[in-house]
Amino acid sequence: MDTNSGNNPVNIGFSVPVIAGHESKKEKTIVIVNGVEIGGNEAVIIAGPCAVESREQLYETARAALKGGAKILRGGAFKPRTSPYKFQGLGIEGLKLLREISRETGLPVVTEVMDTRQVDLVAGYADMLQVGSRNMHNYSLLKEVGMVRKPILLKRGMMATIEEFLLAAEYILNQGNTQVVLCERGIRTFETCTRNTLDLSAIPMLKHLTNLPVIVDPSHGTGLRWMVPAMARAAIAAGADGLIMEIHYKPEEALCDGHQSLFPDEFVMLMNDLKKIAIAIGRDITLPSGK
Amino acid sequence: MDTNSGNNPVNIGFSVPVIAGHESKKEKTIVIVNGVEIGGNEAVIIAGPCAVESREQLYETARAALKGGAKILRGGAFKPRTSPYKFQGLGIEGLKLLREISRETGLPVVTEVMDTRQVDLVAGYADMLQVGSRNMHNYSLLKEVGMVRKPILLKRGMMATIEEFLLAAEYILNQGNTQVVLCERGIRTFETCTRNTLDLSAIPMLKHLTNLPVIVDPSHGTGLRWMVPAMARAAIAAGADGLIMEIHYKPEEALCDGHQSLFPDEFVMLMNDLKKIAIAIGRDITLPSGK
Amino acid sequence: MDTNSGNNPVNIGFSVPVIAGHESKKEKTIVIVNGVEIGGNEAVIIAGPCAVESREQLYETARAALKGGAKILRGGAFKPRTSPYKFQGLGIEGLKLLREISRETGLPVVTEVMDTRQVDLVAGYADMLQVGSRNMHNYSLLKEVGMVRKPILLKRGMMATIEEFLLAAEYILNQGNTQVVLCERGIRTFETCTRNTLDLSAIPMLKHLTNLPVIVDPSHGTGLRWMVPAMARAAIAAGADGLIMEIHYKPEEALCDGHQSLFPDEFVMLMNDLKKIAIAIGRDITLPSGK
Amino acid sequence: MDTNSGNNPVNIGFSVPVIAGHESKKEKTIVIVNGVEIGGNEAVIIAGPCAVESREQLYETARAALKGGAKILRGGAFKPRTSPYKFQGLGIEGLKLLREISRETGLPVVTEVMDTRQVDLVAGYADMLQVGSRNMHNYSLLKEVGMVRKPILLKRGMMATIEEFLLAAEYILNQGNTQVVLCERGIRTFETCTRNTLDLSAIPMLKHLTNLPVIVDPSHGTGLRWMVPAMARAAIAAGADGLIMEIHYKPEEALCDGHQSLFPDEFVMLMNDLKKIAIAIGRDITLPSGK
Repeated sequence: MDTNSGNNPVNIGFSVPVIAGHESKKEKTIVIVNGVEIGGNEAVIIAGPCAVESREQLYETARAALKGGAKILRGGAFKPRTSPYKFQGLGIEGLKLLREISRETGLPVVTEVMDTRQVDLVAGYADMLQVGSRNMHNYSLLKEVGMVRKPILLKRGMMATIEEFLLAAEYILNQGNTQVVLCERGIRTFETCTRNTLDLSAIPMLKHLTNLPVIVDPSHGTGLRWMVPAMARAAIAAGADGLIMEIHYKPEEALCDGHQSLFPDEFVMLMNDLKKIAIAIGRDITLPSGK
Repeated sequence: MDTNSGNNPVNIGFSVPVIAGHESKKEKTIVIVNGVEIGGNEAVIIAGPCAVESREQLYETARAALKGGAKILRGGAFKPRTSPYKFQGLGIEGLKLLREISRETGLPVVTEVMDTRQVDLVAGYADMLQVGSRNMHNYSLLKEVGMVRKPILLKRGMMATIEEFLLAAEYILNQGNTQVVLCERGIRTFETCTRNTLDLSAIPMLKHLTNLPVIVDPSHGTGLRWMVPAMARAAIAAGADGLIMEIHYKPEEALCDGHQSLFPDEFVMLMNDLKKIAIAIGRDITLPSGK
Repeated sequence: MDTNSGNNPVNIGFSVPVIAGHESKKEKTIVIVNGVEIGGNEAVIIAGPCAVESREQLYETARAALKGGAKILRGGAFKPRTSPYKFQGLGIEGLKLLREISRETGLPVVTEVMDTRQVDLVAGYADMLQVGSRNMHNYSLLKEVGMVRKPILLKRGMMATIEEFLLAAEYILNQGNTQVVLCERGIRTFETCTRNTLDLSAIPMLKHLTNLPVIVDPSHGTGLRWMVPAMARAAIAAGADGLIMEIHYKPEEALCDGHQSLFPDEFVMLMNDLKKIAIAIGRDITLPSGK
Repeated sequence: MDTNSGNNPVNIGFSVPVIAGHESKKEKTIVIVNGVEIGGNEAVIIAGPCAVESREQLYETARAALKGGAKILRGGAFKPRTSPYKFQGLGIEGLKLLREISRETGLPVVTEVMDTRQVDLVAGYADMLQVGSRNMHNYSLLKEVGMVRKPILLKRGMMATIEEFLLAAEYILNQGNTQVVLCERGIRTFETCTRNTLDLSAIPMLKHLTNLPVIVDPSHGTGLRWMVPAMARAAIAAGADGLIMEIHYKPEEALCDGHQSLFPDEFVMLMNDLKKIAIAIGRDITLPSGK
């Protein structure tokens, strides 16, 4: 690291995969989630609860998302929990609620799929399928969602290198599904006072290496509600194409991740701040009329 | 991480040290470096070469710093190099050049001190003393700079937890020197495509736990010139009180860290972007008149 | 870490899961793989190629395994490869070859299963199912193999804490499958001169917390053939119940992991050394007659 | 890592430094500490308390070390403590006690030096100087101990790569001091149930790259007394030239690191086990007569 390499712009130490890599096409990939474009000039905010818990919870939280200016609703029906004794999600019931609330609010929905056998099922209800951090190395699942014709939200493994992350995307892309959004959500390091270490340098690095949209999850990336706004602002300033954040109409009663979910009012305030940052760097975030 | 802890704002798993901690005093610490205030509403930019190489190099780079809007000049006279066969700095000669260029440009200077025996010497020439990442755990040095009456720039060890970082500051503070600025400069993780992983969550965390100013070094934090602007913007958006960046009038000829040093023109452009972000979050960066 | 806690034998910072934990039963679990006992006084060596490549390759490598004193044959039919462009394994053809060579040599076989939809298929051919490092967090797969009545070799995720590793085992155990062997195979750290950092302290820690057998994979743990013997010896000395090692009759022609596979002669020599260490700590490794 | 590189024995990704590297001389370096040879066929055990606390404590602990078969006594006079509020050692008084007990027991002593200004002082009392983990990157100190004519025990930084470790040794060697012993003492990883992750693969790696003796510190490497014996055995089996271990005549009353210090009886039993392992791999550990 001591050479005076004034010219060499990047020496990342690995070969960028063919399809995911920059060279395969010149223009940026725009991923379209039921009409919402990710990867364009506008930064897209995805918000919603960690898990779908009930009709009321999802409806009220979706309304808060809409009010703040979110364009897509998130919510887990199948939850990958570290312990088998924790709440595992509502399953199909959760998928149905997501569809129902989507219809009522007009928000497209993204939800996680964990099992190759459930890909068709989940694709039948959701507008976008998420492959979670714990399954980024699950190549069977990556291949399966590569055969679906719905956009995929691929989260970086909590200890995956940038190279492995791009190769995971490549597993999806080379099955023919070109609609992939990459999501940085924090990596595991020695530091323990945050849940993970949010690696915001992944934003410029991934955008340097690939044309795929890159978003950030400051909720899992920090694990601390009060830290979410600062990191959300930083992610937008660093050039993220969007954010996925956990919000809840009653965080203190959430069945999971309540401690990192924003209150509805916090979310509205944060969205106003994010818009200002987006404009400062020449992008935008459209807020509900009147703002 | 699955409890619905709606209230508990922080559970960091350690006791915040007495003097460095928030509770010891109510107001934020303003560190004054020969008239320049760090920790106030204005974000302060420190810029300059990795190492002092010659009168011309330092003078031209200082002029570029001044032109961009930097308020303090950085430059290493004693360099902590991983290999004994790399350029070790100009030593006292470097200190003298720093003082000289400081006088000519009006920029206060910060430079690193590596040895307890040189603390008085360095304090005789510099306006601010830097304790580098590799010496953050060098408790003898921390105590020694704690007895100096000059402000200290304390860089986080590349392997140091937030707790250890605060305890290192405490070593300085409890010797009576209250003028300490904390600097996040990237931590070591499994990821190798960046030089370090810049932990921007350290900004809100440190500001949550202490009243000391917090700045960020995006140059060492990434090790890649083209990535510095994105991370500099993110750091300001996350609430940093300033930045320390490597710039060089001829990066391709630098004796060290040329690959991560900004060109003078890049620096000027970046400063304009940073000012916009600062304003978007209610702070400011004063640029040379006419901007 | 500075308390004079003379008595407190363990403060691991988490609750040991119910079934996997020590307290659920007093005696050690003996896992029986088609007649071979893992977890008793004898350390059991599993050896074979990374991937099944051909009848000849598998047969010749199995003979080398047998000659050295291995008790179980390993070999991948479905391979989890970081890149979609690398050899993905022979699939069902590989499973059939494993069964065939098992019949000819008398060695039970262990092979990896990657997809919930293939669990029954793999269980139809193999004596023991491996859940690989990349799938340790794949809870759907863990539940599925928990419903099989064949022993499971569960590898620690390269990014998994000891707590998460035990919780992954718990996912299998609480489906009713009590035949689980834990395998340390190296974790990801900042160090890059080895493929992973083999965490041998996991052996005493896991044996302290659970009654399940614990084995070690020094091949993936180091990624370097010449380093395998030293780490294999260390693992036995630390109390491992066995080892799983990659060997190949012609490593230089291997389709995967040739650089970390032992030559047949090296394997025979190593086994003699391992037996001496086993005896030194009061255990044993039975070698073919005449040794 | 998937190439079938059958021949390439090592690709470590960096250049081994000139003097520390294997190629500079053919024979192994034997470091002689007041008559005790480290690096020969016999594995050398260094034992003693974390810190010198009192005459009685040091004397009784030294007797326990001697009884178990230790050849060198360890004990800290200047202690690098993470917090300024923890016991910082007895200083010069501790050095004098070490010298005194050394004279009475015949055991050479090793103790840590933390400050360039104290190198001559410490060298006046100790037979071997330790540069601790926190100071491995303190190049001023490395240069200073390189000018002393006493053997140096250099501990690996808790987050130092093998390359950096060798370069730190090079700083000492190229000042003319060839008597350097390398010590692996655990690295910092994401795992938190042990104090550090003891990287035993450093033993074969360092011995592959350099002729310097390599020893291991299982006390700091695990932070858990009950885990020390397993890791000590593993280190000897992996080929370590010795061990440095914390023992205390009354661990429950120790002013520091009591939780990881062995009781005298445990130490004696462990030494018997270590001797068996040493013999199993063709080396030896000489125990007090009668054993």
